[in-house]
Parts: sequence; C-alpha cells; structure tokens
Amino acid sequence: MTSRVLESLVIPNSTKIVLLVLDGLGDLPNPEHGGRTPLEAARTPNFDALAPAAALGRVLPVAPGVTPGSGPGHLALFGYDPVETVVGRGVLEALGAGMELRPGDVAARANFCTLGADGIVSDRRAGRIPSETCARLVAKLQQAAMRFEDVEVILKPGKGHRFVAVLRGPGLGGEVTDADPHHEGAAIPPAHARVAGDAHDKTARVVNALVQRAAEVLNGEHPANAVLVRGLSARPHFPGYRERFQLRAAAIAAYPMYRGVAQLAGMDLFAPAGESAADAVALAKQHWGEYDFFFLHVKGTDMAGEDGNFDAKVAVIESVDGSLPQLLALRPDVLAVTGDHSTPVPMKAHSWHPVPALVHARTCFADGFERFHEKNCRGGSLSGLASCDLMAVLLANAGRIHKYGA
Amino acid sequence: MTSRVLESLVIPNSTKIVLLVLDGLGDLPNPEHGGRTPLEAARTPNFDALAPAAALGRVLPVAPGVTPGSGPGHLALFGYDPVETVVGRGVLEALGAGMELRPGDVAARANFCTLGADGIVSDRRAGRIPSETCARLVAKLQQAAMRFEDVEVILKPGKGHRFVAVLRGPGLGGEVTDADPHHEGAAIPPAHARVAGDAHDKTARVVNALVQRAAEVLNGEHPANAVLVRGLSARPHFPGYRERFQLRAAAIAAYPMYRGVAQLAGMDLFAPAGESAADAVALAKQHWGEYDFFFLHVKGTDMAGEDGNFDAKVAVIESVDGSLPQLLALRPDVLAVTGDHSTPVPMKAHSWHPVPALVHARTCFADGFERFHEKNCRGGSLSGLASCDLMAVLLANAGRIHKYGA
Repeated sequence: MTSRVLESLVIPNSTKIVLLVLDGLGDLPNPEHGGRTPLEAARTPNFDALAPAAALGRVLPVAPGVTPGSGPGHLALFGYDPVETVVGRGVLEALGAGMELRPGDVAARANFCTLGADGIVSDRRAGRIPSETCARLVAKLQQAAMRFEDVEVILKPGKGHRFVAVLRGPGLGGEVTDADPHHEGAAIPPAHARVAGDAHDKTARVVNALVQRAAEVLNGEHPANAVLVRGLSARPHFPGYRERFQLRAAAIAAYPMYRGVAQLAGMDLFAPAGESAADAVALAKQHWGEYDFFFLHVKGTDMAGEDGNFDAKVAVIESVDGSLPQLLALRPDVLAVTGDHSTPVPMKAHSWHPVPALVHARTCFADGFERFHEKNCRGGSLSGLASCDLMAVLLANAGRIHKYGA
Repeated sequence: MTSRVLESLVIPNSTKIVLLVLDGLGDLPNPEHGGRTPLEAARTPNFDALAPAAALGRVLPVAPGVTPGSGPGHLALFGYDPVETVVGRGVLEALGAGMELRPGDVAARANFCTLGADGIVSDRRAGRIPSETCARLVAKLQQAAMRFEDVEVILKPGKGHRFVAVLRGPGLGGEVTDADPHHEGAAIPPAHARVAGDAHDKTARVVNALVQRAAEVLNGEHPANAVLVRGLSARPHFPGYRERFQLRAAAIAAYPMYRGVAQLAGMDLFAPAGESAADAVALAKQHWGEYDFFFLHVKGTDMAGEDGNFDAKVAVIESVDGSLPQLLALRPDVLAVTGDHSTPVPMKAHSWHPVPALVHARTCFADGFERFHEKNCRGGSLSGLASCDLMAVLLANAGRIHKYGA
C-alpha cells in the first residue's frame, strides 16, 4: 500500500544515493566489553564527524521477533516488503552460488546421498563427501544430464555434498515438491506439482528424470550414488529500481548472494577487487557518473558476528570508517549506513534485533548525536522505521518524491 | 500477516517464559507526587537490580488513542491482534463471572428492569436493586427457566441489577440483537438474528422465550418485574498457545475474568490462594516443571488506579517487587513484566496510554537503564512495540523462532 503510493509519487532528479550495508551490523551490549556493542567500542573518527548531522534510528527488517535471512534482509533494505516478496530457497542458493538466473528459470538445492540396493536412502548426506569429490561427481552428472525434453540443466558444485541445479527452458513452473524424503530410511519420493498446472508438471518431470539419470550415472560410486533435489523455485519477477524508483542502480558486492538479490531488484552488478569497504568505494568512484544509486555491501561484520569475534567485528567497522572519507569525497546527496539484520557476537548467529541505521543528507533531520551506535539509535528520529521503508526516506532526502495530494 | 509468518517459524525448545501482568500498570506523571508515576515513586530494589540488564519499552495495546478493556488488553499481550480477535461482551461478562464456557455456548449480559402495565420499560435498572435481591430473583428465574427447546439456560447473579446468562445447546449462533430498548419509555424489542442463519434464529427464540418467562415469573415483584438481555455472543474459537506457539501455558490469576481470557488462548487455569504476586509465584513454582509459559496476573495495580489511590498503587508495585526474588529463583529464561493497559491514578479509569514493559533475557538487548518506569521506557529498545507483538519478542528470546528465509 505504502509502496504503491510512494511509487506513484517518484520524480526524476540528478541526485545520488549511497546505501552502504554492513552485513549483520546490529549487535548487543556486551558484558565482556564493558556493556558496549562493537559499533560503540570501535574507534570511528569519521562516523563520529558525520553522526551529529545525521538522522539515526533502529530499523526493523521483517517483524518483531523475526530473524531475517540474508535474502529477506536485503530485499527489505531495497524497499520490498520482505513478507510479500517471496524468493524461494533454490533461487537464493543459486544466487549465492553466483549462478545467473534468467526470467523463467527454476532453481533447486540439491545434494548427493547414499541409496541402498533396496532403493532406501541410508544417508541423506552421502557421508558428507569432501567438496573435491562433489565437484568431480557434479561434472560427471552434468555430462550425462545436459538436457531433458527441451530443458537445459545447469549444475554447480557447492560445499561438501551440496550442489545447485538450474533448469532453463520454456514453460517451467516452480511450485514443485521435493525429491527428498527429508529423513533416512525411506525411498526418494518423486517430485510432483504442488498446485495444478502444466508448467509445474513439466518441472516435476525434469526433476524426476534428473534424479533417475543420477542414479544410473552414479551407480558404482560410493557413498554418493544418488541425488536429492529440494527447494524448487522459479526466479521471481518483480519490478526493479528503474521501474519503481526511476533509479539507475549499481550493486557492488564481493559475494554472489548479495549481487544476486540486487539483480532481482534490477541493479547492475559489480564485483570489487577485494572484500573491504575501500574496494567497494573505489569501484563506486569508477562508475559514479553512470548510476543514481549505489548499493555497497560489506560482509566482514556478519562473518565476525557469526564467529563470535568481538574484536574482528570492531576491526571491520573501523576499516569501513577508514574508507568513509573517500566515499564522502564523491559527494553523495544521500548516504545511508545500516545492516540487513543483526548478527550479535554473543549469539554467533543472525538475530531479530532491530538494526542501527544512519542517514546523512541535507534534509535528514540532524539528530545531533555524538556517535553512531545502537544505543543512540534507539532515540533517533528514524527509530521504529521498517527496513523496507528506508528507501522511501532515502528517495525523499534525494528530492525524488513528489508531494502527495494538493 | 506477521502473525502467520511468526507461527510458521515456531520451533520447540525447553526454555521457560514468564509473563507477569500488573493490571493497569501504566500511569501518568503525577503533579501531587513530584511529577512521578507510581512505578517511579515506588521503592523497588529488585526491579532496580534487574532493570539495567533488561530491555525496556512502552507497548501499545490496541491503537493510538484507544483505551482497551481487560479482554482486548490481555488478548494483545497473549499475541492476538485485539482488533481482529473479537470476543463478545456477553462472553467477557460470563468469563468475568467465572462461568465455564464450552465451544458452542452463547453468553449474554442481562439485568432486571421495571416494566409498566403498558409494557413500557420505566426503569432499565429496576431501581438498582441490591445484589442480595438480584441473587434471590435469579434463583427464582433459574427454577422456571432451566431449558427452552433443547437449550439449557444457566444464570448467574452479578452486582446490583445485573446477571449473566449462558445458553448451551446444539446449533446456537451469537449474531443476535439485544432484547433491550437501551432507553426508558419503550417496550422490550424481541431479539432477532442480525445475520441470516438458523443458528442465530434459534438463539433469538430462546432469548425471547427467556424474557417472556421472566415477565411471567417476576409478575408481582417490584421494582424488578422483567429482564433485559444484551451483548449476545458465541464463545469464540481461535488457535491456542499449543497450536500457535508450541507452548504448554499456565494462567495463574485470582480473578475469573483473566483466567477466562487465558482459557480462550488455550491455557490451563490456576487460581492462587490470594491476590498477591507472591501467591501467584508460589503456584508457578508448584507447577514449574509442567509448563513452558506462565501468565501471572496481579489485579491490585488496576484497582488502586480505578480508586485514584496513588499510595495504594505504589504499595502493590512494592509488594510485587518483594516477590521478584522468588520468581527469579525459578530461573525463567525470559521474564516480561508489563500491564494490559494503563489505569492512571488521576483518571481513575483505564486509559489509552502505552504501557511500560520490561523484558529480561540473555539476548534481550540490555538497555542499561537504572530503573523500570514509564519515562525510561520511552527511550528503551522495545519502545513502540504493539502489545500483540510482545509474544514474538518473548518467543525469540526463548530461542523458539526459526530464521525467516535464507
């Protein structure tokens, strides 16, 4: 609703917006570090210089108590309702593996398993074969399963027993059940359409043919002599940044998952030379004239949080702070710094906690806080904002939203 | 929407959650008490010890400016949208009177009135007869109105002229208009179905038969010679705590109304020996091993607020504070302390003001405030939360919500 009203009010402008996402930025006050969060503990002279003139807040990615995955977390920051905008597991896996997804493609998560002579799955993970074995077996399977009917099959090995399958061809549907018993001691159930429709039936036929072919090709291999396929989903199609916001958008991210989600939003994709914020900023500088909107992704904060490494998270934040002068030198009209979700060091995992956000712009409402961190954000003028409404605030500050009504 | 997403993410755990509700807890800064609220003025060493490690906030029961009754206030705290989850007046009245309500039952508020020889209601409250008279007349009416068609009628006297009627039998509906002119100088209108349906027609017939029988039985009584029936409603059915949240839930409340609303949410009901928090905590201790979730209700704060008695409200809060050590000794993984609504002393009534809330858990985001009261809650990390989203936060802190998306 909000989104439809907003989009009807979008007007063009020559302003530039930067959305700098520190993955998993949000954290908890840490008793082992004087009750400070990593963002609070970090030495951040450049953020400190920026903070007083910025609007701060804590933004909510999905809903109270709900811990977002990377997909929903980023979709929200890109201005898509993360509950209504569904991206299937297979699609996210394919994007995370850096596979291209075209409109009409169906993607799936897949893995090797061990099948007994009786047709019963004895190990769903095929003894967790090493990634090298997986790569060899995927290559072997790919040779034997290039195409079923008029559908191209594209496989890509992952970690351990995992791989990804993309099906490309006319008239495929994504509403198909798993060819996976989800527990040992049962046969592999054939995939079938979850809802009526030729497109879904066709996908199910191809999946079942692939599973069948795999059992033939892998006959004699041990322990990986069969495959399971799950999370089938069609590449979703929703209106992108140009259509919704009249923005030429660039995504600069070292990891394929984030480029992938940005691709769904219609952004052009760029992989920086390294994982640091400085690498991302350098690439933004290179393409500064070509785009109106830049999504810059930094993964290190999330990785440090997942590792439970407070000092590492602080170090990543300080390194981002160090790259801020180069970014500001580009003179973006609007700069937002936030995360797709929290990954608190004490939890070593994504969490449901709202995420600190900073918006710097001439008209942002300068909250006057001395520093940018979770505690100040509680009382900031953006507090309580849904993450998927942040884009509206950025567009407004960029002079790209017309008045509503007379 | 949010609720459906949340419920799809619920996972089991062995953690325990306590929701301690101080009825009508919220209040206003009181000029006669140095601008302090009762929660602020109370001596609460145990809350003070807890506060710095807790997340604080003000939660909104229904909507801005909307003053909740006890029903919606508690439904919201139990995680039900209080606007979508409708519980009729008759049902609430029956629950408040401690009457059992089975699925299919229809309940109504009723009262004695004075009917003239011309069939016109001359006093809708029958001169506010004393409760003793009411009890005698209800007993007399009950004798004469045990059953109409195949429907059992169960009456229970209330205060003054008021009583409650429960109809129990096959095929009853709750969408029935009042047998009550709502003003003097008019006849008693017959009840009729508000929407088409045999079930509603049947209820209307029974109500009209009851009103008719009452006029016969009470003929000769004065001033209470007839009855009015209103607020007809069927016991609602909605999914309970086990179904929604995989929680075995216990409600410990001295007053039947609160046990009744908890029963609608599928909780098992316990009546403590007395009205104090210590009584409730003692009972929780007794059943600690059997349940995952404990709702503890303390009524005194609301009563003191309704009485406009600042000191009494302070005393109840201090007494709750005194019981906190026994509660914490049970080692709940998540403890929430809040109210179902505000009952400010200066207003002597329920009000629309958001309600202070405290959530204590390992992962709650320790706000670091020195004390738990309305003013600190404004700037807490839970501020702005809808009361019906509080359950999501409790479940998340209890490790009972799976990640959303990949």
